[in-house]
Amino acid sequence: MPANKKLLFLPGDGIGPEVMRQVRRVIDWLDRKRNVTFDVTEGLVGGAALDAYGVALKDETLADALAADAVLLGAVGGPKWDNPSDYTKRPEAGLLMLRKELGLFANLRPAVVFDALVDASTLKPDVIRGLDIMIVRELTGGVYFGEPRGISDIGNGERRGVNTQVYTTSEIRRVARVAFELARKRNRKVHSMEKANVMESGLLWRQEVTKLHQEEFQDVELHHMYADNGAMQLLKNPRQFDVIVTDNLFGDILSDEAAMMTGSLGMLPSASLGAPDANGGRKALYEPVHGSAPDIAGKDLANPCATLLSFAMCLRYSFDMEAEAGMLEKSIQNVLGGGMRTADIMAPGMARCSTTVMGDSILRELDKLAS
Amino acid sequence: MPANKKLLFLPGDGIGPEVMRQVRRVIDWLDRKRNVTFDVTEGLVGGAALDAYGVALKDETLADALAADAVLLGAVGGPKWDNPSDYTKRPEAGLLMLRKELGLFANLRPAVVFDALVDASTLKPDVIRGLDIMIVRELTGGVYFGEPRGISDIGNGERRGVNTQVYTTSEIRRVARVAFELARKRNRKVHSMEKANVMESGLLWRQEVTKLHQEEFQDVELHHMYADNGAMQLLKNPRQFDVIVTDNLFGDILSDEAAMMTGSLGMLPSASLGAPDANGGRKALYEPVHGSAPDIAGKDLANPCATLLSFAMCLRYSFDMEAEAGMLEKSIQNVLGGGMRTADIMAPGMARCSTTVMGDSILRELDKLAS
Ligand SMILES: [Mg+2]
Ligand SMILES: [Mg+2]
Repeated sequence: MPANKKLLFLPGDGIGPEVMRQVRRVIDWLDRKRNVTFDVTEGLVGGAALDAYGVALKDETLADALAADAVLLGAVGGPKWDNPSDYTKRPEAGLLMLRKELGLFANLRPAVVFDALVDASTLKPDVIRGLDIMIVRELTGGVYFGEPRGISDIGNGERRGVNTQVYTTSEIRRVARVAFELARKRNRKVHSMEKANVMESGLLWRQEVTKLHQEEFQDVELHHMYADNGAMQLLKNPRQFDVIVTDNLFGDILSDEAAMMTGSLGMLPSASLGAPDANGGRKALYEPVHGSAPDIAGKDLANPCATLLSFAMCLRYSFDMEAEAGMLEKSIQNVLGGGMRTADIMAPGMARCSTTVMGDSILRELDKLAS
Repeated sequence: MPANKKLLFLPGDGIGPEVMRQVRRVIDWLDRKRNVTFDVTEGLVGGAALDAYGVALKDETLADALAADAVLLGAVGGPKWDNPSDYTKRPEAGLLMLRKELGLFANLRPAVVFDALVDASTLKPDVIRGLDIMIVRELTGGVYFGEPRGISDIGNGERRGVNTQVYTTSEIRRVARVAFELARKRNRKVHSMEKANVMESGLLWRQEVTKLHQEEFQDVELHHMYADNGAMQLLKNPRQFDVIVTDNLFGDILSDEAAMMTGSLGMLPSASLGAPDANGGRKALYEPVHGSAPDIAGKDLANPCATLLSFAMCLRYSFDMEAEAGMLEKSIQNVLGGGMRTADIMAPGMARCSTTVMGDSILRELDKLAS
């Protein structure tokens, strides 16, 4: 029998703990009904860790993260810890440290439209019905990390602000590889986006993606697209895309554009993956795209779906449990199809429910699907 | 009597000449009916100039541009001149040289939805009806121009691609000033977009925009927004915006997102402005957002509206002829309201017309409005 699967739970701040509680229930269900056991350790991150330890992530928690097969995070941040004067004392510093120390260079941002929620989008139903895009954003390189950077005084009352966009061959290849491998399990189509027409870093990106494609992934269809055209094509005909791979900055913008296109930020999961290790595993962190929503925290109002879907990604990518991942996703679809809605996705004619009741319903659907 | 207004016409390639011909007709109309005379010089740019002179813009044409009150450009480029190996021999090089030599640092990109075309968008009519945003994109600085830049070999089969994002106080202030001044003539609201949370150049941008606002434009409402959130808010509630000011790269993406949201690229004009001179004038170039559309060139099929609307911007910003600019815009609206459509904006129940017939109809509307 294989060793138990090691999960680190970091519920974080705001609605984080209550949405993560629903994941616990699914984990218990998997144990009881599917004989799949997880070893779950829990820790603090963000504001919760600042309150308890004075740091947004303590060394022991980081060590737990490094030892785990996967980390599941709720959300971090809130007005209580808004402290822009010291970046290291911000809740977000905990998340940034996790990404850096785990080497999570590939950020997977699905943009999926559930049939039951197709009207939530500002786009016409006919345009986005059935949308299922996977955006792979490079997460640890590019202009948000490059050196030199800073603001300097250049005399005569003038200042100068500098950042450096930089990518190397291996940084580009490893994230492109993630995209090509994902495409193989999907519809075998990758769009790589940059501005090769005006940026050398983008030209290198294009050349390296092309080279890797020719060497190893000729079974996948590869398209190159300028990022500004990408922003347009997402709106014009979003279903032309399967997997999109792009750099940190363009990915920041385009993944958010695609997320808002779905109309339901409360439904969107994400995964951040590191390099494969010798055993075929890789460091991974899963978290919902939405924030900590401090205004509704503790009120049993939050939508747990994005966190549950993040756990489905965890089952799929960290534990190769495609069947269980699919069951969880299907359960959520069925519950939405039945008209159940948390407040954030409430619509006329639907039944409004709490976080807990949404969890109850999803567990009942899991029972049905498993029987 | 003041000296005649000096215009340089650069029809360029593809559909450029035929859409510019409709502007000529409006200029003749202004001469006959409104006693406004323009001195029009014409020149070659892009592929047309490459064919005639071997360069995408010859010195004499550049001199004419520098001597003109405003430049009106059709479009450049086409498969005939696709020559990626030598960037200086590309049609676009002519346009880039014009921008650089005229110092056109402020790119004005309106995103306007005409009532008659509200259904052309992939967004729901209720979301975009009446949309009227002005995006001001910094055009001569930032990561597309910063040094150092390039691709270098760093050994072990690895290469490194670098670009530099750089802005100075005066570069930020001059483009922000354009945005604030535009807002004063519109709805007195400016959203400034950057990534101050992760980029020092963005932090400097935010600080300098704030400072200029406090010094001179407190009558205008100023909001700061992270550019990724901007990409989302444009989709979620586009009508919250009046004027958006942002850097070269973010402006590249966001202006195209906003353009596609309107659903009718064939309707979108643009202006690029330089610094004010001692006489209160400023160098300016006006051009449609659409390209040269070589597939329909010479067939009298192109939509002249974007170029005519670019000329309306020219009347407004270079010659302070608000009345005439408004009349031209209103004429186009009326013609669309009457059901006339070129092929690119054709819809069921409408009347399909040629470039020339669209021009005829607009002139008839001008007659009506002037009488
Ligand atoms: Mg983002
Ligand atoms: Mg663009």
